[in-house]
Order: sequence, then C-alpha cells, then structure tokens
Amino acid sequence: VTHPARGLAAAEEPRLDLERAVFFSDAVFAIAITLLIIEVRLPTLPSSATDADVRRALAQVMPQILAFALSFVTIGVYWVAHWRRFRYIVRADVRLVSLNLVLLGLVAFIPFPTAMIGQHGDLPTVTIVYAVTLAAAGIAGPLVWLYAWQAGLVVPGVTARFAWFTALRGVAFPTVMLASIALLTIEGPYPVESWWVLILPLQFLINRALRTPEPEPHEA
Amino acid sequence: VTHPARGLAAAEEPRLDLERAVFFSDAVFAIAITLLIIEVRLPTLPSSATDADVRRALAQVMPQILAFALSFVTIGVYWVAHWRRFRYIVRADVRLVSLNLVLLGLVAFIPFPTAMIGQHGDLPTVTIVYAVTLAAAGIAGPLVWLYAWQAGLVVPGVTARFAWFTALRGVAFPTVMLASIALLTIEGPYPVESWWVLILPLQFLINRALRTPEPEPHEA
Amino acid sequence: VTHPARGLAAAEEPRLDLERAVFFSDAVFAIAITLLIIEVRLPTLPSSATDADVRRALAQVMPQILAFALSFVTIGVYWVAHWRRFRYIVRADVRLVSLNLVLLGLVAFIPFPTAMIGQHGDLPTVTIVYAVTLAAAGIAGPLVWLYAWQAGLVVPGVTARFAWFTALRGVAFPTVMLASIALLTIEGPYPVESWWVLILPLQFLINRALRTPEPEPHEA
Amino acid sequence: VTHPARGLAAAEEPRLDLERAVFFSDAVFAIAITLLIIEVRLPTLPSSATDADVRRALAQVMPQILAFALSFVTIGVYWVAHWRRFRYIVRADVRLVSLNLVLLGLVAFIPFPTAMIGQHGDLPTVTIVYAVTLAAAGIAGPLVWLYAWQAGLVVPGVTARFAWFTALRGVAFPTVMLASIALLTIEGPYPVESWWVLILPLQFLINRALRTPEPEPHEA
Repeated sequence: VTHPARGLAAAEEPRLDLERAVFFSDAVFAIAITLLIIEVRLPTLPSSATDADVRRALAQVMPQILAFALSFVTIGVYWVAHWRRFRYIVRADVRLVSLNLVLLGLVAFIPFPTAMIGQHGDLPTVTIVYAVTLAAAGIAGPLVWLYAWQAGLVVPGVTARFAWFTALRGVAFPTVMLASIALLTIEGPYPVESWWVLILPLQFLINRALRTPEPEPHEA
Repeated sequence: VTHPARGLAAAEEPRLDLERAVFFSDAVFAIAITLLIIEVRLPTLPSSATDADVRRALAQVMPQILAFALSFVTIGVYWVAHWRRFRYIVRADVRLVSLNLVLLGLVAFIPFPTAMIGQHGDLPTVTIVYAVTLAAAGIAGPLVWLYAWQAGLVVPGVTARFAWFTALRGVAFPTVMLASIALLTIEGPYPVESWWVLILPLQFLINRALRTPEPEPHEA
Repeated sequence: VTHPARGLAAAEEPRLDLERAVFFSDAVFAIAITLLIIEVRLPTLPSSATDADVRRALAQVMPQILAFALSFVTIGVYWVAHWRRFRYIVRADVRLVSLNLVLLGLVAFIPFPTAMIGQHGDLPTVTIVYAVTLAAAGIAGPLVWLYAWQAGLVVPGVTARFAWFTALRGVAFPTVMLASIALLTIEGPYPVESWWVLILPLQFLINRALRTPEPEPHEA
Repeated sequence: VTHPARGLAAAEEPRLDLERAVFFSDAVFAIAITLLIIEVRLPTLPSSATDADVRRALAQVMPQILAFALSFVTIGVYWVAHWRRFRYIVRADVRLVSLNLVLLGLVAFIPFPTAMIGQHGDLPTVTIVYAVTLAAAGIAGPLVWLYAWQAGLVVPGVTARFAWFTALRGVAFPTVMLASIALLTIEGPYPVESWWVLILPLQFLINRALRTPEPEPHEA
C-alpha cells in the first residue's frame, strides 16, 4: 500500500498539501514573533506619574526591549532559513509534518525564555535556558531539511553536498548559543550575552563560505 | 434552487472557497497552539532574585511547561488529522463550515484548561475539565469528516470503509482521555495524567491496524 | 488615469490582489476569535487549593465561558457571512479594502466588551457596550458588500435583488442586539441577554425566507 | 553563481516564493493589529460594582480605546501601502525579505508604545516614543519598496518617477509624527496628539497630488 502523498500522479495536488503545511508553519512563526511584544510591559505607574518616572520605567524595561529584538531577529532568521529550504521541498509526508511540528513547538516556546531573560538576564540559569531553547530550535530546522532530503521529498537536482551545505548554513545560531554556555563558567551572564551579537557576522561569513551552485528550486 | 457551492460547473471555483475555510482553520489551530505559551509564566521575582530563586521558580512552572507540551502535541495531532482528512474533501457547504467552526471553537478553548491543569493538576475536577475538552475536540474532528463524506463533498473514490477508517483513526486521544476519567475514582489525578502518555503508542498501533488502500486525494 | 485594479486586462492578477485582502481579513477574524479565550481566566488560587475551591472558581468564571461562546459564535457567523459574500466579489479597490478595515477594526474590538460582559454582565452599561459593538460589526459587513456591488466589483450575474437579499441576510444579529437595548429599560440585563439566544433561530428563518436564485460565484 | 531566485526560468516559481514572504507579512500585520486590543483593559472592579462604577471605569479607559483606534488605523494604512506596493513586486531575494523583516519588527513593536500612550498620553517622553515608533515603521515601508525597485524585483513598467511617487505616498504619517515632536517643546503632549488627526486629510491630499499614470501590476 503506497502512501497517497507518494503515489500521486497528478502534478498539482502534492503542492497543495505542502502549501498547507508551509502555511501552518508561517502562521506559527508569525504568531510567535509577534507575541514577543506582549511580554514587554512598563511597570504599572500611578496616573500621577511624571515624565521622569516614565523615563526611569523605560530604562528598566530596556533589557526586555533588547530581548524582544534578539528573539525577533532569531525567529526571523529561522523563518528565512525555513523559507529557503522549503523552496526545494516538493512533497510532504506525515513524518515531515510531524518533525516540522517539533520545530514549531520549539519556536512557539521562545517567548517564555525571552520573557525570563528580559527580566533576569543577570542570572546564569536564565542565560542557559534561553541559549538552549534557541539552539534547539536552530538545530531542529536543519534536521527537518535533512529528513526531507533523505526521504526524497525534494527536487531531483539536490545533491548530497548541497543538502549538507544548506543544513550547515543554519548552524551559526546554535553554535554560538551553545558555545556561550561553556563560557558561562569563566565569565558572567552579561559578557556571554554580549557575545551573541557575533551571530550575525558569523552567519554572514558562513553564507559567503558555503556559496555553491544551487539546483533550481521546484523545477529540475 | 440549488446551492451555488453545489451547482458549480467551473472546476476551479469550489477549491477557492474550500481553501478559505481550510485557511481559516489553519489560522485558528496555529493561534491556539502558539497562544498556549503565554499561560507559562514565571512567578514575579524581585529584581534582586538569585540564581537559586530562579531555579526554584522554574521547578514550580515545570507542570505548566509539561501542560504546554501535552496540549501542543494534542493540537498538533488534531491539525495533522485535519490536514489528512481535508485532502479528500473537494467542496465546502455552509453546514461543513459551521461544523468545522464548532471544532475550531473547541480547539480555541484548549488554552483555558491547559492553564488550569498547569497550576492545579493535582485536583480531579481540573483533570476532568482538561480531559473532556480535549476529548470533545478529538471527537468533533471525525464528525466533520463523516459529515463531509455523507454529504458527498469528498473525492469520488472514498468508500464507506475508508471513510469510517479515517474517522476511527482519530479516536485514540478521546478514548484514552475519557477512559482516564473513569479511572479517576480509583486512582488520583497524577497517575491518571501519566496514563495519557499511552496516547501516542496507541495512535501508532491504530495507524498500523487501520492501514487500508486509500483513494487518490483530490483526484479519482 | 484609471486605477490599476480596474484597468487590468490580465485575468489572473486582480484575483491575487483580492486574495491578499481576503487573507488579511481571515487572519484578523481568526486571531480575534481565538484571542477571546485569554480573557477567560480562573481567579488565582493558592497552590493548597482544594477541589471544592476549584469548582467554586469554575462556577465563578462560567459567565466568562458563556461570553466566550457567544462572541465565538458571533464572530464565526460574521466570518461565514464574509466568506459567502466574497465569493461574489472578483476585484478589490482601495476603498473596498478601507471599508473592510473598518469592519475588521470592529471585529478586533470584540474581545474587549466580551471580557466586560463576562465579568459584569449584570450591569446595563456593559450590556449596551457589548450589544452596540456586535451590532456595529454586524452592520459593517453588509455595508462592505453593498459597496462592492454598487462599485461593480462583483460577478456580472449579481442582480440588485440578490445584492440586497445578501445584505439583509446578515441583519439578524444587529437587529436582535439593538432591539434588546430598547428592552433594557423595561427588563434587567440578564433577561435581555437571554433574549440573544433568539438570534440563531431568527437567522435560520431569514435564511429560509431569503432563499432566492443565486448567480454563479466568480463565474457568470 | 547566480542566486536561485534570480536565475529561475520557470514563470510560476518566483511568485510562490514571493507569496510566502507576502503571506508572512500579512500574518504579522494582522496579529499586531489584533493584539492591540488586549492592552485595552477595564481596571479590576469588585463583583459588587455598580453601573456608575463601570461608567467611570469606561471613561478611564477611553484614552486606551482612542490609542487602539489610532494604532489600528496606522497599521491598517501601512498594510494597505504594503499591499499596493507589493502588487508591483514580482520576485523576492533574501535581502528584500530581510529588509521586510525590519519593517515587520517595527510593526510588531507598535502595541508597546500604544499601551504606553493609552495610559500616560500626557507625558512628553511617551508621546515621543509613540511618534518615533510609528514614524520608523512608516519610513521602513517606502525603503523596502525603493530597494525592490532598484534591485530590479519589480514589473518592467515601473519608472523612476513612479517608484519615487509610490515611496513618497507613504510619508504623510512619518512626516506629521516627526513634525509633532518638534512642536512638543512649544505645546504640551495633548495639543500635539490632537495634531495627529491631520494625517488622514494630508494623506488624502498627497494621494490627489501624486496621481500619475501607473504601470500594470504584475504584467507589463
């Protein structure tokens, strides 16, 4: 008995199926990225608060705003990676959808450690929970892609080399995040967190280094 | 007077209508599954909190994180079932959309008992409310499908046997959930909740047992 | 200078434009309908709470659950009406999109009076704010449709009679809501709110009475 | 090595890619615009509250409702502008998607200053934060468009004149917002905020003044 998603003869149908899975992913990414802001909240001030009170309160929530920005960039980069990879995926099976759900669960979890680090970014445990969550989501993405590739759900032109390069492209975030945890015993949380700004230039260097001929997406 | 969704001759149009209903469902599933996280919240700690305080607070919210994970998996599995079934549905009528709305209402309600069980999972009433809500959503899904089948909104190749098999495939969650309520009088809430991990292997066995030739989705 | 959305010769393009507006509407409807649940919240109980405490707390939030259900049904019905009407709309212009935004603003506002009526449903002012908001959203929907019809954005087969019938189909909710406000001076809020269950049978009767030959959606 | 999104020969594929980016944008806009309402909250009243209490509480949240309305209109207008501009964009590259993410981050941030101005609209700092956020999002939109145009991601018929006109069309909001900050030293926050109602008529005048022959969207 062949799985219907595999046995399909019609050209258009698998795309529709895939589209729904892609759409659901986009929605979860979009909601998680937008929900981050509801954890950024000014402490309740009396209605008689002065401008100086509000400026002080704003200074207090500044770490939360930075945490919002960092998580926004991270989820955004993960979404762009998802978008790049799914251009080469042409079919979905239940296993791909399930693996993708694990990725989405990790992405949906990100607002929780983001709220934590916005309020207690000076504590090692908080730094670890944040770094591990973001690293886990950053590792799940390439795994979904590698499964799709080895299960033959991608366009014919995808070589092993291209598949692995595409997977490795996403490792900048998890690598820096996990490495920073190792540093935590030597330095305090704040120096470690400031390390994280290295992610973007590292990602940029990886992108340069991994430049390789790419197959045509969706058509081969 | 024929209903326009039924009397249509053009091939493309009913798909568009159906797509909008499917899209709306995906959005509600995605929002409900992502909103779960905003109920997971660290108790407010003073800004002078130590690392030990945060670890204690994390241990305290662990039941809420488990509740998040369980509800995420449940809504995820229900969404995958929705995705599988709607591959065989080719038309929508107002009744299908209304029945589907009942399903969505139950799904949208899930964050409420999830928040409850995360905080008071040791109380029988909370266990019952959680189990009944998830079971109700798990029963509504197959009912939507059976309606679509008997109303002739599916691809021609769907046999009665396949329709019932597809419906029964989704009963693992509601069955275990409802059976666990019966056990509640014998055992306490925590043993009953640990029972729920049986859902995934049971679902796996059902999937194996119900393997049957399937019609081509969307094309017959 | 003709507006590009009107001057288009290509058959496929206006659909895409329209789809994005429809999609945005679906997303706002879906978010508003799913956000309703975050206002349903058990009062904070000590971790030593007994089962009796939780049952009492559940009884206390029952009006909030009913308010969730009523608003869910209302937004759901409004969405189905939107879905029915937009099947006959084939083009979008900036004015249609702007009018539609007013409708979406009213729908997005619904969680606020829903939270109010869930907590203070015994007070006339709360009943009025809830009824007026839902009525306003219920009137905006038909107005968007009537604009689309008179601006020639619908399929050719739509007659004046059908346009008005389709508009009137949606008046059950606003009519009952506004009429109930008038009753508020005679009876208290609770009898008036129980009146609202009349909406669904009234809608059913209207649907029966307004049955009329319908043009083919999207194709004429 | 050419970027796959540029080297594509197949006509359909780039559209799909673009659609996913557009879809993600729509979702973030829709979530941000709908989340605004959860910051509008009646102060907690005792269950014995009278109708007069509720009316007083409603009067108290009126500034929050106005802030909801203003931000809703702003995000709505920004979304319409996004919709207008992306009708002329036919391809997406990673840079366009990244720039668009910056725009989305600013839009997703809007609920935070909206909550602030709803509670402390009488303080200059709050007025400035609100005005700067909305102006930044209002400037990012045209920048995304100008990038798309100069990178050749738009339909062939788009002239430099049309590209600049389309960009300038969106400056009414940021201009009034930033100009109002300059006025803040002369007048207090409330007069400045009442200034903001000038945005809509100004936008209307700009629309009139910038009327110019437009290329066919998606087809040239």
